Amino acid sequence: MNTFGKRLTLTTFGESHGKAIGCIIDGVPAGLQIDEAFIQSELNRRKPGKSKLETGRKEDDKVEILSGVFEGVSTGTPIAMIIFNTNQKSKDYENVKNLFRPGHADFTYFHKYGLRDYRGGGRSSARETAARVAGGAIAKLMLRELGIEIQSGLCEVDGIKAESIDFEYAKNSKLYALDPNKEKIQEEAILTAKENHDSVGGVVLTTATGVPVGLGEPLYYKLDAVLADAMMGINAAKAVEIGDGVASTHLKGSENNDEITPEGFKSNHSGGMLGGISNGDSIIIKTHFKPTPSIFQEQDTVTTANEPVKCNLKGRHDPCVAIRGAVVCEAMMALVLADMTLLNMGRKMEHLRTLYSRSN
Amino acid sequence: MNTFGKRLTLTTFGESHGKAIGCIIDGVPAGLQIDEAFIQSELNRRKPGKSKLETGRKEDDKVEILSGVFEGVSTGTPIAMIIFNTNQKSKDYENVKNLFRPGHADFTYFHKYGLRDYRGGGRSSARETAARVAGGAIAKLMLRELGIEIQSGLCEVDGIKAESIDFEYAKNSKLYALDPNKEKIQEEAILTAKENHDSVGGVVLTTATGVPVGLGEPLYYKLDAVLADAMMGINAAKAVEIGDGVASTHLKGSENNDEITPEGFKSNHSGGMLGGISNGDSIIIKTHFKPTPSIFQEQDTVTTANEPVKCNLKGRHDPCVAIRGAVVCEAMMALVLADMTLLNMGRKMEHLRTLYSRSN
Amino acid sequence: MNTFGKRLTLTTFGESHGKAIGCIIDGVPAGLQIDEAFIQSELNRRKPGKSKLETGRKEDDKVEILSGVFEGVSTGTPIAMIIFNTNQKSKDYENVKNLFRPGHADFTYFHKYGLRDYRGGGRSSARETAARVAGGAIAKLMLRELGIEIQSGLCEVDGIKAESIDFEYAKNSKLYALDPNKEKIQEEAILTAKENHDSVGGVVLTTATGVPVGLGEPLYYKLDAVLADAMMGINAAKAVEIGDGVASTHLKGSENNDEITPEGFKSNHSGGMLGGISNGDSIIIKTHFKPTPSIFQEQDTVTTANEPVKCNLKGRHDPCVAIRGAVVCEAMMALVLADMTLLNMGRKMEHLRTLYSRSN
Amino acid sequence: MNTFGKRLTLTTFGESHGKAIGCIIDGVPAGLQIDEAFIQSELNRRKPGKSKLETGRKEDDKVEILSGVFEGVSTGTPIAMIIFNTNQKSKDYENVKNLFRPGHADFTYFHKYGLRDYRGGGRSSARETAARVAGGAIAKLMLRELGIEIQSGLCEVDGIKAESIDFEYAKNSKLYALDPNKEKIQEEAILTAKENHDSVGGVVLTTATGVPVGLGEPLYYKLDAVLADAMMGINAAKAVEIGDGVASTHLKGSENNDEITPEGFKSNHSGGMLGGISNGDSIIIKTHFKPTPSIFQEQDTVTTANEPVKCNLKGRHDPCVAIRGAVVCEAMMALVLADMTLLNMGRKMEHLRTLYSRSN
Repeated sequence: MNTFGKRLTLTTFGESHGKAIGCIIDGVPAGLQIDEAFIQSELNRRKPGKSKLETGRKEDDKVEILSGVFEGVSTGTPIAMIIFNTNQKSKDYENVKNLFRPGHADFTYFHKYGLRDYRGGGRSSARETAARVAGGAIAKLMLRELGIEIQSGLCEVDGIKAESIDFEYAKNSKLYALDPNKEKIQEEAILTAKENHDSVGGVVLTTATGVPVGLGEPLYYKLDAVLADAMMGINAAKAVEIGDGVASTHLKGSENNDEITPEGFKSNHSGGMLGGISNGDSIIIKTHFKPTPSIFQEQDTVTTANEPVKCNLKGRHDPCVAIRGAVVCEAMMALVLADMTLLNMGRKMEHLRTLYSRSN
Repeated sequence: MNTFGKRLTLTTFGESHGKAIGCIIDGVPAGLQIDEAFIQSELNRRKPGKSKLETGRKEDDKVEILSGVFEGVSTGTPIAMIIFNTNQKSKDYENVKNLFRPGHADFTYFHKYGLRDYRGGGRSSARETAARVAGGAIAKLMLRELGIEIQSGLCEVDGIKAESIDFEYAKNSKLYALDPNKEKIQEEAILTAKENHDSVGGVVLTTATGVPVGLGEPLYYKLDAVLADAMMGINAAKAVEIGDGVASTHLKGSENNDEITPEGFKSNHSGGMLGGISNGDSIIIKTHFKPTPSIFQEQDTVTTANEPVKCNLKGRHDPCVAIRGAVVCEAMMALVLADMTLLNMGRKMEHLRTLYSRSN
Repeated sequence: MNTFGKRLTLTTFGESHGKAIGCIIDGVPAGLQIDEAFIQSELNRRKPGKSKLETGRKEDDKVEILSGVFEGVSTGTPIAMIIFNTNQKSKDYENVKNLFRPGHADFTYFHKYGLRDYRGGGRSSARETAARVAGGAIAKLMLRELGIEIQSGLCEVDGIKAESIDFEYAKNSKLYALDPNKEKIQEEAILTAKENHDSVGGVVLTTATGVPVGLGEPLYYKLDAVLADAMMGINAAKAVEIGDGVASTHLKGSENNDEITPEGFKSNHSGGMLGGISNGDSIIIKTHFKPTPSIFQEQDTVTTANEPVKCNLKGRHDPCVAIRGAVVCEAMMALVLADMTLLNMGRKMEHLRTLYSRSN
Repeated sequence: MNTFGKRLTLTTFGESHGKAIGCIIDGVPAGLQIDEAFIQSELNRRKPGKSKLETGRKEDDKVEILSGVFEGVSTGTPIAMIIFNTNQKSKDYENVKNLFRPGHADFTYFHKYGLRDYRGGGRSSARETAARVAGGAIAKLMLRELGIEIQSGLCEVDGIKAESIDFEYAKNSKLYALDPNKEKIQEEAILTAKENHDSVGGVVLTTATGVPVGLGEPLYYKLDAVLADAMMGINAAKAVEIGDGVASTHLKGSENNDEITPEGFKSNHSGGMLGGISNGDSIIIKTHFKPTPSIFQEQDTVTTANEPVKCNLKGRHDPCVAIRGAVVCEAMMALVLADMTLLNMGRKMEHLRTLYSRSN
């Protein structure tokens, strides 16, 4: 249950304030150049404390490869990666030890398991997403060799929507803003909420280009369904849209269908998928993140003994989780597309004959 | 890849115009009373041709249980169910044999597999969802014994939103309308589109009550993620929202958090889940369906040889797939909750001791 | 739990005396010619009543394909096959309704599930293996296109061992005997046991030729381990040997190692595998079947209420299950090798580049 | 493919001469006391260099728990464990860098993946089994709370068979010998082979007591089949027997059936399973290990360029892998039984009602 994917799998472990977090990524084809600097750079994009838009918790997030790579190249065996936790302030959590923070998983973990690691959310902390980013980086390296590129950015912050989309711009934006003209007011919205000891939501747009026709396995491992699973499973995600998503519901069939020409589709309302299989157009997906549940206003809650109590949080928290969420969305999309790419091998008898005639 | 679920699994087979469709549902606990009339009644709710809001294809959808039930009770072995296809008009599809219908999976299946069963979409047809409904009915029977009930209805048709929600009313509405005051204009919107040889979208609201705290397996089989997978995998689904979904993105953390009291949560913005685990409140999920891609207006497309051609569809099609989609949403939610219920067994050492002390 | 395989999966359903048995085989590559006559001929090899060495139950075992094949070719969608039960004499089992037949699964099914379908063993009956043979036939068709052939025969009956191995001879032998010189005394041993209302054991040798180097997925889906799983899972199997198996335990390392020359291995003690991966030599596996537990001598047993009672069986039973077990061993080996062949796709980056450069 | 189990899963990583080996064990129920000293003691039983019957490679095999345990108790989240490699003499392998050691996986890994980590067998090294033992120790802790105990020992070395079985004695025997009267000559056989630069095979008997009726999931996750998978997957295993195994093939049905009385079975030919489900008797399984392929005699082999060459090994190797294999057999049996125990939860509706009525 801590494993994602079928043919390329990511298994993660670790708690927010434990010794380490990490992952095992299994099924990576042999012969892939493993660029460690790239993996680290992906982790750096996600790591906290880069600006005042993010939590003040400072983690190096230095990743170490333990296995599966020999002389710089993947060997086909499982790649284990580990990130030691260094900046744990468990004491920040002493006061929430016996109560449930509203909007957090404290309540459900405690009731499900009969106990919980209360330090920083334990396993339910978004800190675990660092392991996803490490795994996603490997997937990106594989996809890159096939010409598939993944990009992301924020198309909405606190209700302020992007009116233009510039993925290149987003890369260097502190809040991964897609619209240069909205970046400033989006940033202000975040800082205002922070000053008010509050938080805001946001929407991440993730895209993949260079995707061939045919990724996605009907009927219960469709590309759209698995992307929805991947994105909704990220901490704080509350809605996922494929292509035009909600908006397509308001169109007529004659408006929403993407007509086809010998040069390709006339439009891309579908977000690059038909019947849950990629159609060769860009994959487009939106992930909606709720405002960070960790706020610094007093809230009603109960203790583990179900007695009413006031919750007053300490610690360090992102005022807008969607920002760092963008990097995680990319990682999850990379993992899904890499998995689908491998599952796609051998779907035709012709594939088998080709690879067998090449002496396997 | 044609199997859904981990502990309770549904495996389906069959094409729109083949001999039969059906499913195997595996993992059902022994000792469940199997009410065949209920299973048939669920299929009847989904079956086409009940009103002019639906496709004219008439199928009896008579389900037959082949295994796994002895003397009216489940035995713990796989339950196979079969529905023979009776009203296949394959000739309707002769004219689309060599072209791709816009908005359909024809294009992607052909390119993925190098061939396709062109009759009515073959495997990609929504006809396959009858098998899901049969499986979902078994899941509902199991959940019902535990006090879990699932309901659904349309909260939006062609952009016309419900302003009140009445699940009981929806049950007897031709379009499963949740708001009695909107039903008439929603119906008119569908019929107007139909007259214009066009189609409309819609949104299904699905809910489950009586769900205990604790369903959902962190971190890669969370309840919200798996529900998103289940719903997005239904034909024509383009967006999924959990609880307040998109709207929660526009709230502040202080507005969106569900505060907790000894009597329970003060609100249910979260849709009954925290950290991907059910919190005891009602599960709430919205599924957005695009307008039916099968329309009777001329559209541009290409042949299998990539030559431009006009697509003029014949046949019988739903003007609003969301209507019958509602029944499928219920089935998928039932399958997810039943799977999660079984996975939830044995999560505490205390469970093992309890069942072992009872002579296993 | 009723599904075998990872990438090519077989899911079976059905009880001995229910309406039908059958299977869904999923993951078959598109474009495979499906030779229905071959599938039926495989079922005929397994079906009972061909000689007095087998049970007198006569079943046509007529297989019908319900889906996944269009115009004689696999489409990449799940292939469902069904075999209706025709010669059910449930009355034969009325007298064992409330007791447990020694050596049978009655005792364990009843205690595991709290009830059981007592007619002919229900799900635990070897009748289910017909579904395996149907699925295995599809796997054989796929392997055949890649030059992989599977053969089997009995190398031991009631302790009488074959001294020579002739797979061609075995094909036309009533007891699939591998040694023409032992066939007669092996047959006599079976008939003598039958006259004594008793039964005998036997050993099946199964081999695959034309297997390329590289099948098998380390470390927990090794070819030898999965073959052991597949063979031990057949009704009445009690031991599995790979290559020299038990005998290799008595050799020194210097005797047991297969030395390597540029032309290949000098010997094949290993049974065609090293480290759980095929080495290009013939796959060799032995499966030991216990004597049929259904005998016609009075035996001590208990009722479902745990009261002592005498068990006197009626009905029709094989005096040596190993005979028909040989056909099942072939089917299971075919399923394993086909699964491994598909899993083997994409294990090198070079594969991905090759198939992508061919426009996927 | 590096994951074992379904409900309780073990995922391992690491190469013989890489930085570390380790595992993630997922699905452990919350509330289990994690006795770290016990885990370490299990690793100590397997670790090399304890006597001259074993390889001279000295590894501390100090295990460290990284996650999943809080205040000494399992939390229900994945338990990651790591063992750093300390005594790597990679130089020992420089001379085999470009050739394939007979009887080893070098040949198959190289051809499967197009490259290999040649240092000590890389991933295919038996060193990986330390991770299995760590995971198995957790499984044993869980089983112990339910009264299930697992024991093992050698019942045969170099063809010298035990005539009596004493599991308690085996615990303190250097070669885990089950028969005190044979220990000495078995030891001598090993040392003689070692002096001759050769190696010997052996057979491990593994048993579990206290197993309830009902473990094992028909039809494709039977207890016997999964145990066969587990044991055959251990390095150097070549045959697996359940209960009387090979010997049962030589009995008549009337001799081999275990008759039943109100007090239990009269005999245990079956090895504690019927129809692949545990019957409440002791589980008995034999695993046959080939002689260690690493010998110090010159052998014929080829280079990676397929040129003939002589193989002369250096390094340190066990003269009889079966000895340390015994500890691994126990670990694998523990993992299988723990997995089956968890899968067994929820197989009856009664279970669901019991646990739900206890407020879940």
